[in-house]
Amino acid sequence: MLRRALVGKPIHNERAAGTVLSKGTALPVFASDALSSVAYAPDEIVLTLALAGSAAIAVSPWVGLVVLVVLAVIITAYRQNVQAYPSGGADFEIASKNLGRPAGAAVGAALMVDYTLVVAVSMAAAAQYLAAAVPWLVGRQTYVAVAGIALVGLLNLRGLKFMGRASSVPTYAFVAVVLVLVVTGIVQDVTGTLDAAPSAGYDVLPTTGTDAGLTGLAGAMLVLRAFSSGAVAVTGVETITHSVPYFRKPKALNAARTLAVLGALSAALLLGVMYLTWRTGAVVVMDPARQLLIHGHAPGRDFYQVPILGQIAQAVTGADSVGFAVLVVVTVGVLFMAANTAYSGFPVLASRLASSGLLPRQLQSRGDRFAFTNGIILLSVVAAAFTVVFHANVNGLIQLYVVGAFFAFTLTQAGMVRHWLRGRRLHTVKATQREFVLRLAVAVVALMACAAVFVVVLVTKFVQGAWLTIVAIALTTVFMRAIAHHYRAVDAELEVRPDTPIRALPSRVHSIIVVTSVRKPVVRALSYARASRPSTLEAVVVDTDRSRTEQIARQWEELEIPVSLTVLASPYRDTVGPVIKHIRGIRRKSPRDLVIVYLPEYVVGRGWERFLHNQAIRPLRTRLHYERGVMIASVPWHLESVRERQLTENSR
Amino acid sequence: MLRRALVGKPIHNERAAGTVLSKGTALPVFASDALSSVAYAPDEIVLTLALAGSAAIAVSPWVGLVVLVVLAVIITAYRQNVQAYPSGGADFEIASKNLGRPAGAAVGAALMVDYTLVVAVSMAAAAQYLAAAVPWLVGRQTYVAVAGIALVGLLNLRGLKFMGRASSVPTYAFVAVVLVLVVTGIVQDVTGTLDAAPSAGYDVLPTTGTDAGLTGLAGAMLVLRAFSSGAVAVTGVETITHSVPYFRKPKALNAARTLAVLGALSAALLLGVMYLTWRTGAVVVMDPARQLLIHGHAPGRDFYQVPILGQIAQAVTGADSVGFAVLVVVTVGVLFMAANTAYSGFPVLASRLASSGLLPRQLQSRGDRFAFTNGIILLSVVAAAFTVVFHANVNGLIQLYVVGAFFAFTLTQAGMVRHWLRGRRLHTVKATQREFVLRLAVAVVALMACAAVFVVVLVTKFVQGAWLTIVAIALTTVFMRAIAHHYRAVDAELEVRPDTPIRALPSRVHSIIVVTSVRKPVVRALSYARASRPSTLEAVVVDTDRSRTEQIARQWEELEIPVSLTVLASPYRDTVGPVIKHIRGIRRKSPRDLVIVYLPEYVVGRGWERFLHNQAIRPLRTRLHYERGVMIASVPWHLESVRERQLTENSR
Repeated sequence: MLRRALVGKPIHNERAAGTVLSKGTALPVFASDALSSVAYAPDEIVLTLALAGSAAIAVSPWVGLVVLVVLAVIITAYRQNVQAYPSGGADFEIASKNLGRPAGAAVGAALMVDYTLVVAVSMAAAAQYLAAAVPWLVGRQTYVAVAGIALVGLLNLRGLKFMGRASSVPTYAFVAVVLVLVVTGIVQDVTGTLDAAPSAGYDVLPTTGTDAGLTGLAGAMLVLRAFSSGAVAVTGVETITHSVPYFRKPKALNAARTLAVLGALSAALLLGVMYLTWRTGAVVVMDPARQLLIHGHAPGRDFYQVPILGQIAQAVTGADSVGFAVLVVVTVGVLFMAANTAYSGFPVLASRLASSGLLPRQLQSRGDRFAFTNGIILLSVVAAAFTVVFHANVNGLIQLYVVGAFFAFTLTQAGMVRHWLRGRRLHTVKATQREFVLRLAVAVVALMACAAVFVVVLVTKFVQGAWLTIVAIALTTVFMRAIAHHYRAVDAELEVRPDTPIRALPSRVHSIIVVTSVRKPVVRALSYARASRPSTLEAVVVDTDRSRTEQIARQWEELEIPVSLTVLASPYRDTVGPVIKHIRGIRRKSPRDLVIVYLPEYVVGRGWERFLHNQAIRPLRTRLHYERGVMIASVPWHLESVRERQLTENSR
Repeated sequence: MLRRALVGKPIHNERAAGTVLSKGTALPVFASDALSSVAYAPDEIVLTLALAGSAAIAVSPWVGLVVLVVLAVIITAYRQNVQAYPSGGADFEIASKNLGRPAGAAVGAALMVDYTLVVAVSMAAAAQYLAAAVPWLVGRQTYVAVAGIALVGLLNLRGLKFMGRASSVPTYAFVAVVLVLVVTGIVQDVTGTLDAAPSAGYDVLPTTGTDAGLTGLAGAMLVLRAFSSGAVAVTGVETITHSVPYFRKPKALNAARTLAVLGALSAALLLGVMYLTWRTGAVVVMDPARQLLIHGHAPGRDFYQVPILGQIAQAVTGADSVGFAVLVVVTVGVLFMAANTAYSGFPVLASRLASSGLLPRQLQSRGDRFAFTNGIILLSVVAAAFTVVFHANVNGLIQLYVVGAFFAFTLTQAGMVRHWLRGRRLHTVKATQREFVLRLAVAVVALMACAAVFVVVLVTKFVQGAWLTIVAIALTTVFMRAIAHHYRAVDAELEVRPDTPIRALPSRVHSIIVVTSVRKPVVRALSYARASRPSTLEAVVVDTDRSRTEQIARQWEELEIPVSLTVLASPYRDTVGPVIKHIRGIRRKSPRDLVIVYLPEYVVGRGWERFLHNQAIRPLRTRLHYERGVMIASVPWHLESVRERQLTENSR
């Protein structure tokens, strides 16, 4: 009952498979991941540069512009990708088909890792915004983030409720609020009424090693680090390419158009926020206690650093204004939707990987609630683990996320370069060839951009956590390839070949009923066994308790049961061994015969009753599976409680 | 492999059942619980009295004497009990037979709760002694105690290794060391060379509410509280009565003699320690920071309160002497053995309760490793939980333990009073009657003593944690009675009555093979099904994927399989529903027929492979169990890895 309450009714398969969204609904559902990065990407750029002191922060608008260029390149490339591979296999399919199965597995692994990090990053950021509005939550961000993950997880266990029209509200609200904020801020700036951000007057102390500002190699590295952190703004576009099957027809074209709109929106929001960051002088740092001086003093114990977007809202609408509260609400909303996106994307990806034999086959059917449920639980648990390990520190989690995302981007674009090269060679018509060259050029530029970011991220952030992502991806890849290898080996082993004897039958059938008490289920097992007319039929009782054995023998005689009862000695009170020994004796005499063991099995109506029945027979059942030429026949017996439960369910 | 390494090889049943110990070995094994209480019982008396200030502590020897009287009464009573009920069912059996099943269940529940508390108390006390010797452990007692529980648990999972002769060493060593200590101390006292305890010069401040000393009602309550805390010295004697089956013949007589020796030893140790406590002026308090003044100052941060027995060792042999170190080692050793005793007693009790239907039946066989393992894990987890909740505070845990123990004692003695009353009535010979009256008198005195302690404990300690024990016992009792009720209902439901049709057979047998791929396991299932010569035989394939269905149909034809293949439509990609619908169709036409569903089942050699197979078929199997007139036939197919594993195992 508890499970039902938490998990909800089974999904109708048709619903899962057949959901189709218009562009206007698909955009907010699948773009929330990409759009929500406006809530943390600017912070990443500023706080990385702030390591070199106040002056260095001035560079941040330029870093932001470079990020926008990368965004434009990647969006352009992905619009082509979606149309070339419209099945929703996306990055995984592109890498597999063009670079081979190992590369495909690596991309699949990277995407799986990234889905968990999207959840962790989004909920950590949401906790940061909530704490900015509700001081009581300061210092409790980890709990808030984990609670958020639990909430999204539970809602998803109850079905994809968030794919309806209601789900577009948080994303549109966020976009609208930030746009209004940006436009108001720019108007205020032009009219000279824009306030400075609360943090504009703080002194930012350079940290050791970077006290020379942005000069020299250390300075260059810091700018690169800031850029690669800001590149988190680009991540999330791949979600749309995974979701092509959810779009209306023409699916690929609609998805490509949505991508263009997403790119334009992302760029506009990011540009506006970066501009206002510069104009309001908003500052964030990694470690306020050591890096900030407020009017010459270190920040007090109750100092809490509001994220950039929040600071801009405070500058534009006032520190404790309704505007600030509204911004926090819509930001938390869009971050929640971003996490939710990962939950709807994860099973799709898992199903795709399972079809390729890289994950257990049962994940293949998205309608399989068992697998679906386990996938959601796995995603939640790993995301929560990341959150706890990093104390819900957004900056720390983003390092991991960017590495994984750009690893996948890079491999995918490498695959696309190969794809267009191949396509050009296959086509002989000049005009088509020219088109291919154009697309190839886009792919090459995107590959270079992605590779550049990936290398920068890897080099500048390896020690800060990027290694963890690489290890996670590597382990997942090895794991998936082990699964694939196993499935291939089993396929070869089980293949029916021309020499497989199809018409051969066991010579005779020996039926055995294991009796532990003379009760109705045994009587039923007897009648089922007799109905199958075996060559021989015997009941066996293992003599672990003399008085009980005698009682069974007595009842057997009294009831005149028309089957012989064999008592198997068991000096060591072992219930399994004597039965196995007996069966082996039969098989030794006639190895081509079949032995059927009938086991009465109690079916209970209430979960807890399960622990009270069938336990004694379980070791025997397991052991029997390892015997050759033995078939196990379960004879179910429904206890009263089953009937009661069925009646209750029918009357509902 | 990990499991095997941690848990060890299966126990040979004969070993578990046939272990028999001489009195000299049984005493240390089963008495460690009772004897080890010398390590904490005196502290309980002193620190309770110390609540009323320094002067009140002078009463402690007298309180100790009353505890000794109770000990003598209970030992005498239990010697009778063991001989009257020599089967090892002990308290549970006595209460069930004389007071009825509900009382028996309550006693069983109390004993189960007490076993977990013995483990928690013993390991918490051991941590206290270790911290007295190794200052680094101060403040880390909870970790130490939990680690100790984990260690005893793991050792027990590996089998009852501690029942050999080696296990007598810690207990004998403890007894010897404490006896030497007591004798040396008394000699020093007589010769006037006995040092004062380190704490003898401390001022003990009375706490609020008790500043009037031991006068008035509050004072009387405090003395009663001290007495009931000290009564923890009496607990543990019941362990021997549970262990009668482990004794050599004449079992009951040997157990009774061992009890007498135990009583004498306990009394001697306790008397000696209480005497030296008085003579050395050793003091312990509940909260040193608030209650102690050392040379007029509150104790410093690094102050650690050494338990009484440790303080006596310091007074007799010197503060940092080898003697003190030896005492700590042997005390930790005996406390470890006391916890171990609970682990060996718990499965015996559980098996006894299971025989009476109060616990799941599979617990009945002590040789069942599955149940045995789970019992040990349960005991460890609950004991660790108690330890963590009470921060390994011995005083807090003892409150819980004493309540449970005396609850069981009281009910048991009430049962024995009834037993002797009944016996007297049954016998007409005068001499025998007189004997019964004598035994009855002992039982009545013991009942009164136990009831008195129980009431005192309950009244004086209800808020300090005693309520928790009562709740735990009540919940366990309710739970066990629910199980018993369920088993009785099922027994009635399943009973074969004269009108049960024993010779009736299903009219016809319809066999169905569910095909998901044309591979060797399906071929085998087909041949097994055909060997049983059913009335009808058909293969069904659920059409969830058009191309796969067509492939199966094509292979079916090519291989000329001599069984018809039915394709079941599944517009919603549901794999289970169409099969159930098909079966219900057959059953509707002829309700008296039997349907056998053949399911190929993959048997794998490596644990992780299990997740890669059989998963898709599992929901169908579960669902089929709820259909009437359906039998499920598992056709095992052994993958190569099984053969590899069997080869490896045989070559070992």
